[in-house]
Amino acid sequence: MDILTVNNLWMMICTALVFIMHLGFTFLEIGLTRQKNTLNILFKNIFIITVGLLLYFLIGFNLMYPNFGEGSFGIIGFSGVGLTPPLTNNVLDLTYNNGFTFWTDFLFQGMFAATAATIVSGAVAERMKLGPFIIFTVIYVGFVYPIAGSWKWGKGFLENLETPFYDFAGSTLVHSVGGWAAIIAIWLLGPRIGKFKNNQSFAIPGHNIPLATAGVLILWFGWFGFNGGSVLSADPTKTSLTLVTTCLAAASGGVFSFISSSIIYKNYDLTMFLNGILGGLVGITAGADLMSPTNAIIIGAIAGILVVLAVALIDTCKLDDPVGAIAVHLFCGIWGTLAVGIFGDLASLNQFVSQLIGVIAYALFCISTSFIIIYTLKKTIGIRVSEKDELKGLDKSEHGISAYPEFRLNE
Amino acid sequence: MDILTVNNLWMMICTALVFIMHLGFTFLEIGLTRQKNTLNILFKNIFIITVGLLLYFLIGFNLMYPNFGEGSFGIIGFSGVGLTPPLTNNVLDLTYNNGFTFWTDFLFQGMFAATAATIVSGAVAERMKLGPFIIFTVIYVGFVYPIAGSWKWGKGFLENLETPFYDFAGSTLVHSVGGWAAIIAIWLLGPRIGKFKNNQSFAIPGHNIPLATAGVLILWFGWFGFNGGSVLSADPTKTSLTLVTTCLAAASGGVFSFISSSIIYKNYDLTMFLNGILGGLVGITAGADLMSPTNAIIIGAIAGILVVLAVALIDTCKLDDPVGAIAVHLFCGIWGTLAVGIFGDLASLNQFVSQLIGVIAYALFCISTSFIIIYTLKKTIGIRVSEKDELKGLDKSEHGISAYPEFRLNE
Amino acid sequence: MDILTVNNLWMMICTALVFIMHLGFTFLEIGLTRQKNTLNILFKNIFIITVGLLLYFLIGFNLMYPNFGEGSFGIIGFSGVGLTPPLTNNVLDLTYNNGFTFWTDFLFQGMFAATAATIVSGAVAERMKLGPFIIFTVIYVGFVYPIAGSWKWGKGFLENLETPFYDFAGSTLVHSVGGWAAIIAIWLLGPRIGKFKNNQSFAIPGHNIPLATAGVLILWFGWFGFNGGSVLSADPTKTSLTLVTTCLAAASGGVFSFISSSIIYKNYDLTMFLNGILGGLVGITAGADLMSPTNAIIIGAIAGILVVLAVALIDTCKLDDPVGAIAVHLFCGIWGTLAVGIFGDLASLNQFVSQLIGVIAYALFCISTSFIIIYTLKKTIGIRVSEKDELKGLDKSEHGISAYPEFRLNE
Repeated sequence: MDILTVNNLWMMICTALVFIMHLGFTFLEIGLTRQKNTLNILFKNIFIITVGLLLYFLIGFNLMYPNFGEGSFGIIGFSGVGLTPPLTNNVLDLTYNNGFTFWTDFLFQGMFAATAATIVSGAVAERMKLGPFIIFTVIYVGFVYPIAGSWKWGKGFLENLETPFYDFAGSTLVHSVGGWAAIIAIWLLGPRIGKFKNNQSFAIPGHNIPLATAGVLILWFGWFGFNGGSVLSADPTKTSLTLVTTCLAAASGGVFSFISSSIIYKNYDLTMFLNGILGGLVGITAGADLMSPTNAIIIGAIAGILVVLAVALIDTCKLDDPVGAIAVHLFCGIWGTLAVGIFGDLASLNQFVSQLIGVIAYALFCISTSFIIIYTLKKTIGIRVSEKDELKGLDKSEHGISAYPEFRLNE
Repeated sequence: MDILTVNNLWMMICTALVFIMHLGFTFLEIGLTRQKNTLNILFKNIFIITVGLLLYFLIGFNLMYPNFGEGSFGIIGFSGVGLTPPLTNNVLDLTYNNGFTFWTDFLFQGMFAATAATIVSGAVAERMKLGPFIIFTVIYVGFVYPIAGSWKWGKGFLENLETPFYDFAGSTLVHSVGGWAAIIAIWLLGPRIGKFKNNQSFAIPGHNIPLATAGVLILWFGWFGFNGGSVLSADPTKTSLTLVTTCLAAASGGVFSFISSSIIYKNYDLTMFLNGILGGLVGITAGADLMSPTNAIIIGAIAGILVVLAVALIDTCKLDDPVGAIAVHLFCGIWGTLAVGIFGDLASLNQFVSQLIGVIAYALFCISTSFIIIYTLKKTIGIRVSEKDELKGLDKSEHGISAYPEFRLNE
Repeated sequence: MDILTVNNLWMMICTALVFIMHLGFTFLEIGLTRQKNTLNILFKNIFIITVGLLLYFLIGFNLMYPNFGEGSFGIIGFSGVGLTPPLTNNVLDLTYNNGFTFWTDFLFQGMFAATAATIVSGAVAERMKLGPFIIFTVIYVGFVYPIAGSWKWGKGFLENLETPFYDFAGSTLVHSVGGWAAIIAIWLLGPRIGKFKNNQSFAIPGHNIPLATAGVLILWFGWFGFNGGSVLSADPTKTSLTLVTTCLAAASGGVFSFISSSIIYKNYDLTMFLNGILGGLVGITAGADLMSPTNAIIIGAIAGILVVLAVALIDTCKLDDPVGAIAVHLFCGIWGTLAVGIFGDLASLNQFVSQLIGVIAYALFCISTSFIIIYTLKKTIGIRVSEKDELKGLDKSEHGISAYPEFRLNE
């Protein structure tokens, strides 16, 4: 059982690292948005983590790793409410898996669950009402994410393609799933007041770039666990290769994002550098265990350039994504997923087709479910704060207090 | 010896995680207090960590894990100044423990030692003089905490009750020990100027809610080590169960604190949500290894509700605790300790009685020692800054510089 | 192979911990400097991490761990561009090392590489042009650091002295290498406007002491990996002793820095306390695995006092180091390296002489290379921003945006 102890230890540490990514997301999102909406974002992220974990306990885990019944076509299954640990003589059965215990399995996967909603949180910042966001989160984290996850990680139909769809740590299953909902949400929400005027786009600067930068570094740190833990054991070759490809893609994504944005816009744009790092991380995530370092650098570089182009494209479409979440999580998520068919150990036309099938399947599911949820909310309780509240800021209008209520300047 | 390597590795990581909790406490405390006292709190916390560790090296470790002499009744023992590692042929004796080396033992326990004083630091913020706080810290961390700890973890009299008192990771031994001193300290100190007027209580908002939120996430992250390491080995079943109960109690504490505070006060109060998370964490700490996930959620929920009620109660008593330390650490610490007799593997009336005995023993010891120390300081050098200094802020009056000395607004 | 799994796991965690030190450096540097130069520092540090890692992939790793050819005298060697993992039957050869895989080896060392440039970044803050800093960084991280490192860790000539030079985790190889470049850079750059007037030195306060404090705590946290990982395995005795000496030296450095500065300057100076902690950490780094706890406390204490004296000395020399990088990394780096000859398992006159030889060799190499690079840059493209830009701040002049572009005060 010693190797189980080692593997499980690694998985627990990775769980902690994925947990702290929520601090990274939080810092990134508040840093890139205006001060008057800071507390609202903090609140949403704290809500997502706590409620996400409880929902995953109640239903998510058993929706995501179900016993697919016959006739379910590997599309939906459910193994019952709550956790039922495998027991032998009333003791936890350690033959459950060689890489982790039942408890670790739940917690590691539970930490992933909330991430999808966090991605949406950033995109809809500064104008979405708290109530409908909470309802959306509960449904999306509680049902949509785990059902989508079951298709591949729960051994559903995408795992059972002739050439199985591959998504190592979630370029699609986590990042695109969040990204699709984000794009639907901001389309239905509309842009923030002042973002577009007379067919022109105006940058709305954030209020705390040091915290945004810290957020990216904390996310990178957490990605050691996000990708490293997705090996599902402490296998020395696979885990260490995964960390190398992860870090090189991050570095390359940042550098190429910086280079391309400084060529296009003629300035040293830190925000683009940061989003390029995240793009590289999202991009490598689908195949981090399959790539050579050189592949990782190429995948990261393309992701970094893609972030710059996607940000411009989203802007051109008059969509308003305050933190660049869609460029990072959706575009680079798709890119990374397809890259598994182009680079690395599985590269082949068949694989590429399977990857494309996966991307399309998730697109259809996530677009339709998030549209239904958010459109329904829009037509019933409404999803957007009033113009007056938006101008005042959501901290005051939704919470009645600001995030720095007592900050003063020194004489 | 391989399993020792694995166990010890886990314990070292947990040590690092407990260390970083000090950043969590620091962020939480400065975030919830006014800007003019920020540097003073930073200073106190840095002082506590460094001096606390040196004191634990000098005397604490050997007070906490002594050879109780006959006639000591398991109340106090001391094994000498400094560290004397067990050697065999001049090499560290690895049979010391199967879960960790002597060095890891010292460091892990040392990281816990400073926590008790940190809890007090938050409660007395914004009005206590630095000098007496330093003296109090030295005595409380150097002597009171380790003696109290020896009663249970050092195999003193509470370990030797017929039904031994149980405190897995320190709901009582760490959190209540800090909490009792905190309540005595703020009672002797009196409330901050402006907190109570005409029998009414006024909220004094903090200056940096993003950092307070980050503090709570970092504390939760650190709790992976605080509770996970208290297994004292990397045993896969026990460690992973402990992390699950810890995280679920945190989530549940936050959610139920949020729900109850929004019912009572009709608003979305982030601070209460945050303190509810901490309450859940403190609450589960005494029995994190004994509970089912459902038990953990119940214990967390009650802790979360308790935080809301305790904050109101403390306010009604005209006690001024700027960061909610007493509601979180004392009330939830007691609750978590008693919960071991009600839920989980050890639940029984006998156990409940033992838990109650433990709670009372610690209450008597901590109340009396902290009263003696702080009352003596009050009557000699004084413990409270002058009214003028309090209004000016402790940063200027005690350190002559502010925490953001050069912060400017952009035109 | 199980023990490899354990060892490699430890090394991967340590790699993550060293990575997050970059957040620590970033927070420390922006916290201790003025707000108008914050974004510039963030940008530089993000640049260093990403480019540093790519350079280390391209050339650094193979410059640092080369096959020294005959006639190279162990001074310079190169094993070719990129990474060539050792393969057996197309599978990674796990006999490479008992403590880590080839991939982990690269990544752990790669995380160290960027640190040297980060040290310089802090010292030249608030007045150096971004372009020349980037050029300097590329050369120094890409070539100077790995060549210097090869002399000892790559088994070059300093490893082959009769009594081999010893530097456990880089008091000299990392910290002094950065420190020497820093002192040359600030000498060639000159002080910031307003730092020295009429032979008097004026303190220029930083803008965010909470983040500076957080930076130090994060650095300490990261040092668990920096020193702990330098054992190059999870050996329980060595790793745990190393963490104990590391933490005690940090604590002692802080306390003695605080004591000496409060004796000299009659105030409670948090910044000095923080730099004392870092001084203790740098000081113990060369011999963290060789010292007893008592030795560690002495080494830390002397480092802490040294920081206070060195800061004063640098000031007297009319050198302007905004963050105290030279006092911490150069002075304490030298001290720690020499201390290996005075305290602990290797203490002897021969060892002391070897340590001195090492210190001098690195001084000569780093001073001359950094002088050549920076002097050339100064005489060609110039290294200092214009007076107008310096007054305006580098955020506006180099990036066209501030770090808190939208921060507002509440009414």
